[in-house]
Amino acid sequence: MIGVDEAYRIIQENVSALPPRTVGIKEAAGYCLAEDVVSDIDMPPYEKSAMDGYAVIAEDAVPGAELEMIENIAAGYVPTKTVRRGQVSKIMTGASVPPGADSVIKVEETEALGTGRVRLLKEVKWGANICITGEDFKACDIVLKEGKELRPQEIGVLAMVGAKRVKVFSTPRLGIISTGDELVGINKKPRAGQIRDSNSYSLYAQAVQTRAHVELLGSARDKKIEILSLLKKGLRRDIVLLTGGVSVGEYDIVVDVLQEAGVEIFFHKVALRPGKPIVFGRSKQTLVFGLPGNPVATYVNFELFVRPTIRRMMGFEDENAQRMVIKAELEVDIARKRTRREYRPACLRMDSGRFYVAPVEWHGSADLLGATRGNSLLILPEDKNPLSSGDEVDVMVTGEF
Amino acid sequence: MIGVDEAYRIIQENVSALPPRTVGIKEAAGYCLAEDVVSDIDMPPYEKSAMDGYAVIAEDAVPGAELEMIENIAAGYVPTKTVRRGQVSKIMTGASVPPGADSVIKVEETEALGTGRVRLLKEVKWGANICITGEDFKACDIVLKEGKELRPQEIGVLAMVGAKRVKVFSTPRLGIISTGDELVGINKKPRAGQIRDSNSYSLYAQAVQTRAHVELLGSARDKKIEILSLLKKGLRRDIVLLTGGVSVGEYDIVVDVLQEAGVEIFFHKVALRPGKPIVFGRSKQTLVFGLPGNPVATYVNFELFVRPTIRRMMGFEDENAQRMVIKAELEVDIARKRTRREYRPACLRMDSGRFYVAPVEWHGSADLLGATRGNSLLILPEDKNPLSSGDEVDVMVTGEF
Repeated sequence: MIGVDEAYRIIQENVSALPPRTVGIKEAAGYCLAEDVVSDIDMPPYEKSAMDGYAVIAEDAVPGAELEMIENIAAGYVPTKTVRRGQVSKIMTGASVPPGADSVIKVEETEALGTGRVRLLKEVKWGANICITGEDFKACDIVLKEGKELRPQEIGVLAMVGAKRVKVFSTPRLGIISTGDELVGINKKPRAGQIRDSNSYSLYAQAVQTRAHVELLGSARDKKIEILSLLKKGLRRDIVLLTGGVSVGEYDIVVDVLQEAGVEIFFHKVALRPGKPIVFGRSKQTLVFGLPGNPVATYVNFELFVRPTIRRMMGFEDENAQRMVIKAELEVDIARKRTRREYRPACLRMDSGRFYVAPVEWHGSADLLGATRGNSLLILPEDKNPLSSGDEVDVMVTGEF
Repeated sequence: MIGVDEAYRIIQENVSALPPRTVGIKEAAGYCLAEDVVSDIDMPPYEKSAMDGYAVIAEDAVPGAELEMIENIAAGYVPTKTVRRGQVSKIMTGASVPPGADSVIKVEETEALGTGRVRLLKEVKWGANICITGEDFKACDIVLKEGKELRPQEIGVLAMVGAKRVKVFSTPRLGIISTGDELVGINKKPRAGQIRDSNSYSLYAQAVQTRAHVELLGSARDKKIEILSLLKKGLRRDIVLLTGGVSVGEYDIVVDVLQEAGVEIFFHKVALRPGKPIVFGRSKQTLVFGLPGNPVATYVNFELFVRPTIRRMMGFEDENAQRMVIKAELEVDIARKRTRREYRPACLRMDSGRFYVAPVEWHGSADLLGATRGNSLLILPEDKNPLSSGDEVDVMVTGEF
């Protein structure tokens, strides 16, 4: 049986970024840039005052000096007069520094005398409170590179350079299929031996979080023809997730169906808990994940394998595709029967700058309510058992904490 | 001038959760639950096998025992036969344990003999591999409490208990207004003295991230009548953000306009860098933030004050409304002229389980491109200056890193 890291590597070998598409700036946040963005202007586009004050020649700025005010320059207006020795122009933050002036003295460091004159209370250094033309970036500079995630800061930069439409990598279309004779829809009351299909909805929420275009393709009974019919719809998408039917039982027919549908299987089973029975394959450009029926197993498989796949398709680099893993101090002793790598729902907390983690009360891979008590997945390694309170452990951060 | 913590406290005193609304389970992810959700079923709803194997009476399970297989129970089906001494029923993961049996032996620990008999290779403990009815939760239990964030795990639990529609707190309607004679639209080429309006778009992206309903209300010149006209539209929403016009210059007329429009001002200016000129007020149920014109000041003000306000309106508790702040080791020396609290764009990184932070190259509060080099805000405290490489500092995490 292959390990988690090997499984991840195999999946990554089969992933590539989707073709770019053009979106408006208001829709671009959260996507990955698929082109270099070049500025059409210098920023600042002109010598700009960083303060409300007076544009002055630094040599004139001695405490007590009384100077003549020749102009009042608001932001958005072009100065019309040149500042000469003995003169100042009043200037607002963001306004264009007038010719002649080489510095700006803050309004708090002056005293207006009326009659168009102003007294300076301090000296000012040459160049003070002036932002130089192009100091942030220059016309023709690449301001944002292909591969960059468009966060709010980047969206603002796009606006600065007038990039009102931009190329980003597409998000995958993802279809979800649940399988199992025991499943009923969420609007039905389960009868004896039945449970509601919860995996479709938890997977939907996980996938929507990544911005994938997600569709619930339906629920199939444990009959090849039913699964095959939904799978065919799924194979028109970039990713298909199936849940259930991947264990070793005689009704676990998903792998057979995948093979009959021409899906090339790369692995079946990973040394992992929960989530061991996962199947991964590909049919042309569609990646296929057969996930177990147990809700927490499905949840963990998605975070470990599917989420990074979606993010890679969206153009993100590997390090920006995976969930963050941080070190924390284990708060309890943990002994296990097996030494498969384990991802256990856990509570991560911060105290005085250190991270601490403890598993939550949890009854195993069917207990999704138990998983709601956690904010992270405690990673129990293959090569260390038992673990003791105080040990340093890895924790996968799955959301805010 | 009040400090950041005092400003935050004043804002929080004016915030309350918005009225609940009902959403479908597929739209519910990311929202805050506005009701207790009660289960209509036990989970598991029946004694359930955790493994593929044989349902057996533990006393019969001795290595070498050969037992009679009386039934084959698939998930979703109700067993029809009672297991008696000397008998087993084949059972699939998730299927209902038949009456009489008290444990399940895994298929790997057995050998099928054909002719309807099976040999056990190991013993099995009483109760092994059986999930007891209601061990995760019981009918009438509150499974999710009001105030809980609906993450994918919680969405799955909603599906389990058949909660296909659920009450969540509403998200605020937020309007954005930019002001300034120097601003031009992003589809125009700035002329001398002009810049493009980038704040509207970076704020839009910040607000959309929180799931607020955001609308760009437009850009006003530094004329009271223009600002007032847009403000009136804004006051029909839950939150209005204005940018620009809040400094001390004579064209900074936003505070005057707010007062003329009947907005009660709670504070103007916070001892903070960048973002000092921020104004906060309220008119009936609408909260009004006047943010500075400098892009990074606006960005920081949003993260510190507006984002938690939106999250509180969405029903989240204070600790779940604010950005996470973690401790990190400073990688450079920093000396400052002033000791206002400062939030500096910075790069946070993890190495061998420790966090390190260094400010990025940055030219001040107009330099939004500089801010794109960071993944966090380094917090320089009021009471410590200079800071030295190796000092422990606080870092506000503004996204993935």
